[in-house]
Amino acid sequence: MAATTLKDSFPLLTLLGIAFLASVCLSSRSDQDNPFVFESNRFQTLFENENGHIRLLQKFDQHSKLLENLQNYRLLEYKSKPHTIFLPQQTDADFILVVLSGKAILTVLLPNDRNSFSLERGDTIKLPAGTIGYLVNRDDEEDLRVLDLVIPVNRPGEPQSFLLSGNQNQPSILSGFSKNILEASFNTDYKEIEKVLLEEHGKEKYHRRGLKDRRQRGQEENVIVKISRKQIEELNKNAKSSSKKSTSSESEPFNLRSREPIYSNKFGKFFEITPKRNPQLQDLNIFVNYVEINEGSLLLPHYNSRAIVIVTVNEGKGDFELVGQRNENQQGLREEYDEEKEQGEEEIRKQVQNYKAKLSPGDVLVIPAGYPVAIKASSNLNLVGFGINAENNQRYFLAGEEDNVISQIHKPVKELAFPGSAQEVDTLLENQKQSHFANAQPQERERGSQEIKDHLYSILGSF
Amino acid sequence: MAATTLKDSFPLLTLLGIAFLASVCLSSRSDQDNPFVFESNRFQTLFENENGHIRLLQKFDQHSKLLENLQNYRLLEYKSKPHTIFLPQQTDADFILVVLSGKAILTVLLPNDRNSFSLERGDTIKLPAGTIGYLVNRDDEEDLRVLDLVIPVNRPGEPQSFLLSGNQNQPSILSGFSKNILEASFNTDYKEIEKVLLEEHGKEKYHRRGLKDRRQRGQEENVIVKISRKQIEELNKNAKSSSKKSTSSESEPFNLRSREPIYSNKFGKFFEITPKRNPQLQDLNIFVNYVEINEGSLLLPHYNSRAIVIVTVNEGKGDFELVGQRNENQQGLREEYDEEKEQGEEEIRKQVQNYKAKLSPGDVLVIPAGYPVAIKASSNLNLVGFGINAENNQRYFLAGEEDNVISQIHKPVKELAFPGSAQEVDTLLENQKQSHFANAQPQERERGSQEIKDHLYSILGSF
Amino acid sequence: MAATTLKDSFPLLTLLGIAFLASVCLSSRSDQDNPFVFESNRFQTLFENENGHIRLLQKFDQHSKLLENLQNYRLLEYKSKPHTIFLPQQTDADFILVVLSGKAILTVLLPNDRNSFSLERGDTIKLPAGTIGYLVNRDDEEDLRVLDLVIPVNRPGEPQSFLLSGNQNQPSILSGFSKNILEASFNTDYKEIEKVLLEEHGKEKYHRRGLKDRRQRGQEENVIVKISRKQIEELNKNAKSSSKKSTSSESEPFNLRSREPIYSNKFGKFFEITPKRNPQLQDLNIFVNYVEINEGSLLLPHYNSRAIVIVTVNEGKGDFELVGQRNENQQGLREEYDEEKEQGEEEIRKQVQNYKAKLSPGDVLVIPAGYPVAIKASSNLNLVGFGINAENNQRYFLAGEEDNVISQIHKPVKELAFPGSAQEVDTLLENQKQSHFANAQPQERERGSQEIKDHLYSILGSF
Repeated sequence: MAATTLKDSFPLLTLLGIAFLASVCLSSRSDQDNPFVFESNRFQTLFENENGHIRLLQKFDQHSKLLENLQNYRLLEYKSKPHTIFLPQQTDADFILVVLSGKAILTVLLPNDRNSFSLERGDTIKLPAGTIGYLVNRDDEEDLRVLDLVIPVNRPGEPQSFLLSGNQNQPSILSGFSKNILEASFNTDYKEIEKVLLEEHGKEKYHRRGLKDRRQRGQEENVIVKISRKQIEELNKNAKSSSKKSTSSESEPFNLRSREPIYSNKFGKFFEITPKRNPQLQDLNIFVNYVEINEGSLLLPHYNSRAIVIVTVNEGKGDFELVGQRNENQQGLREEYDEEKEQGEEEIRKQVQNYKAKLSPGDVLVIPAGYPVAIKASSNLNLVGFGINAENNQRYFLAGEEDNVISQIHKPVKELAFPGSAQEVDTLLENQKQSHFANAQPQERERGSQEIKDHLYSILGSF
Repeated sequence: MAATTLKDSFPLLTLLGIAFLASVCLSSRSDQDNPFVFESNRFQTLFENENGHIRLLQKFDQHSKLLENLQNYRLLEYKSKPHTIFLPQQTDADFILVVLSGKAILTVLLPNDRNSFSLERGDTIKLPAGTIGYLVNRDDEEDLRVLDLVIPVNRPGEPQSFLLSGNQNQPSILSGFSKNILEASFNTDYKEIEKVLLEEHGKEKYHRRGLKDRRQRGQEENVIVKISRKQIEELNKNAKSSSKKSTSSESEPFNLRSREPIYSNKFGKFFEITPKRNPQLQDLNIFVNYVEINEGSLLLPHYNSRAIVIVTVNEGKGDFELVGQRNENQQGLREEYDEEKEQGEEEIRKQVQNYKAKLSPGDVLVIPAGYPVAIKASSNLNLVGFGINAENNQRYFLAGEEDNVISQIHKPVKELAFPGSAQEVDTLLENQKQSHFANAQPQERERGSQEIKDHLYSILGSF
Repeated sequence: MAATTLKDSFPLLTLLGIAFLASVCLSSRSDQDNPFVFESNRFQTLFENENGHIRLLQKFDQHSKLLENLQNYRLLEYKSKPHTIFLPQQTDADFILVVLSGKAILTVLLPNDRNSFSLERGDTIKLPAGTIGYLVNRDDEEDLRVLDLVIPVNRPGEPQSFLLSGNQNQPSILSGFSKNILEASFNTDYKEIEKVLLEEHGKEKYHRRGLKDRRQRGQEENVIVKISRKQIEELNKNAKSSSKKSTSSESEPFNLRSREPIYSNKFGKFFEITPKRNPQLQDLNIFVNYVEINEGSLLLPHYNSRAIVIVTVNEGKGDFELVGQRNENQQGLREEYDEEKEQGEEEIRKQVQNYKAKLSPGDVLVIPAGYPVAIKASSNLNLVGFGINAENNQRYFLAGEEDNVISQIHKPVKELAFPGSAQEVDTLLENQKQSHFANAQPQERERGSQEIKDHLYSILGSF
């Protein structure tokens, strides 16, 4: 009886190595085996017109309960055509903004000042909650693409934006006040205030056309609008560029590639700005990284000790493998074997689970702390990652020459832990001369390059 | 089919400008349109007798889901008659105590010491969780009124108090130990311990009268009891006053009005003590402010960038306007328009919502971060605010001469964002010569004062 | 009507002294009256073989809703036989490890280094999440017993471990990667990798025997395995001992008894390492203490101002008394008395509740902040405590000569608060000459010692 009571209240699924209820919420067929991958169709369009769009990724904790620690983080993607501006607004959320491609001018307003920054690919800046800003695509040809990590301050995972200027979908915040408050605030007649600040652009057209035309309406909505070359130049006048020398300013943008990569060889490059390196990232405790894996190369198996990393595929294709654990629901395993062992004596087999995914631009991956991961590039692959809980994060590699934690194990323990002898383990580990990044098809490639070399020598030899 | 699945798992209510499920929990008719306002009847009386009362505001997150980030904060109001004392007790919660009116002596006990403070209107002090203290109304005539922000350490939003001395409603914590523990602890016979420390006052009377008389019982309950003039003098002997010069002590009270107001003109005064200014507020990350809006004046529209502010109306009457957003549930809007656009293509109109309230003493307002707010005084209005998430909070004004973020927008952007020309916008903004506070009836008033002036000049001219 | 609405949304159970919904989740008969006590059978065995076991305590918040603030903390107990090793693994959780008894070598791997520590009773070290380590029982005779506080970084309260080497219950994390990733990572044929790193020990035997034999299987599972004297010596070569002089290293173990006890007399000793004293404990904001109460002695009634303490009984027997509060469900009390007083006017009697428990080795206690507690030793009692929310915690005693907060109360307030006069209260308090620890049977003991003294004097007097 007591055993039954206990079983009801105490999960039997607790497992060897400490338990994990993999109660995964799956909501689509395409990635149903992988709670850690969001295909690009998991972004929802918040706004779209001929000048650009804003898209917000599904809530992490709605995708899978395994991601509940990310419930206060959202991922936002912004895209705009050349010579356009995203009009002034503020959001009740901290933003970390990364320019994925294109060229921008970002203006940030302060109560008694303003700062403009000239941004390009890899430039990153924190916009504190409530910042009023506007963003211009200053390029003549290239689209501007921006990725934002969004951390709301009012309600977990529910950011809300306030527009200074209104449109049909969302009026100006000023229009929310009553007439007498507005008249007293601006010391002006309401009619004048309405005419100068509030009247919605295209309001008449909208009413004339009616609801059925709503898919065309976007073109008149003034969230992302055209801006002339000349106007752009005016905004660009005092714009500062991201500091190339230092990444330590409190409020200025920094470029993810302005420092030496932390890992680099002919197969790839790994750039990372941590809270220690940049004070802007300290209060949010987030790192931002920028990874380039060359075609046919592999980011070697490794794990992050503390950080949960949200990775976005910026460019290229590849394969992602994440190793987690899953309980084995083998029948009979959860039955009792012995009447005397009533409590806490169940052992359940745990399965190692390979969470695989094919990667395309726009896909988003979550790499939980401690989960080993490897990424292979089938074409030049560029990834941008936000690491939550970044402080004191350590990256442990499981293969490669440097930073390989397996090679640090004492000889007698290698002997006891692995089927091979310590000598065999060491010999095996030494086969990989590369660190961090390596050739993804070593046999073929090495053979290939050897053939070329042989051929070259034979040619040289013939002289 | 896929679209249906998606819709079930992904809220379509996600909106332009980033979504917000305004699933407001309303629980009373009087303020049912306003999740951000608590009328004074939302306080529940925890204790009341002829000497005073203790009242606790309803839980914020029970009032509205929009306030879930305030779930670990409670607001408490204390009131006592002249020559009374609130007897020693401790609570498993941090307190920020503000004297709203009257004169007090607060004694805080330490394991090997005690500190007494002589307090008056505006004096503020943090009492860390577990502090044993007692509070005297030392005035001969005026009631003592105290406001506390309460932040529990054991259970979110559920503070619990422990009395050193017992009464009919709540026995002394000492009486909770068994006889043999008490005898060993005090090295004394239980009878003696009971006689000297435990015996409840009025126990017999209570039993004689029975339950029906409970509404009278309060008069004998020893939570708030009378204390003589002479006893008060003894407690006041070494009591320190709040430092008038500095607000930087780690444990001594500070007065909200001891520093220069951050905003001040003939229409009002705005005092604020931030964590940067006072170390007591740093670990809780809270600011406290004290706002005086003169009759007929207006605190201009503004928003807080990071802080969620809990404001209590101390004195006066007025009007409160808060601008938030609400989804428009227009029929048909959530239907699909195009079979090919299955996912994430919905755009929904967002309404700006004016959350209005008439203000009276005892009302409580919550101003979320980013939400613009304006407050008008119909009689001299005095507000006390606690700002949660105070660090690096910035106040942005939307009208007035100084700190007006709209005037910082680049000219070409003003042109694009507003219906009027940049010149018209600037001219409009310049109409308001005041900053932060202004006249709430400018036309009439200015005319009035102009008339007075004209009259004055005509009088002077006649000389 | 309005009152009914209010009652539904606003808990009437809010009580004098501020409310507490004691909705206790009870799940066993043995400790059903005590949500703050976990008997040793509340540990579940995660792993067990002939060499040792790993046991994890039930989730705190599953045991009782009163413990919801502990939802991200777990308690783990490890035990192993002499000459055994716990093989390399890492967990997605921070650990604070305390050696309860025995002698160990702990090796911690870093990406390019390793550290070994020679540990003994009382040695304590923080292992950050993701640390790969292994633990040897280096003694020839004594079992090694280790207690760990576990704080997961991915999912609250759900730690997950990753083994470098596999076994039947849990394969190596390396086996989770696909063949081609492994081949590229190790630049080696898969067959060789499988032979040297992956092949499970005893795999064949396991398959031969089948599931029915699972209780014997543990013997071949390579989680805790035998290690020879010689191998232990090799691991011990460069092992450092815990610093006896300082407790301030960032990564080296410290001994709980290396500093002077904070309280000490002939009845007991109280050692405590706080975040201020040791930087390892700062980010987790945890203190660790080690309490020895001698047979027949009492740890005097006291409470912690901020910390919630998780106490494990390491050795000995005793009695535990914790004083909390409980709402009195007296019939009729929740009815209304006056139609006019519709809202917030209910007062409800609160009962002081004595949460008692008999203590045996392996029992776990939770002492919430603010709750007074006393512990009596019926045999020499040794307790190890982890204090959550440790910063600025203050211990207030309610009896004894020093640190007794009652004796700090002003005389007139003593008079008002207690049934006895101030003089009677002082006289009573002075009866206890001891501080912190005292004799649990003072009358008998004192008499006994007096008899001995008398006898001694009579002997001396005879000279």
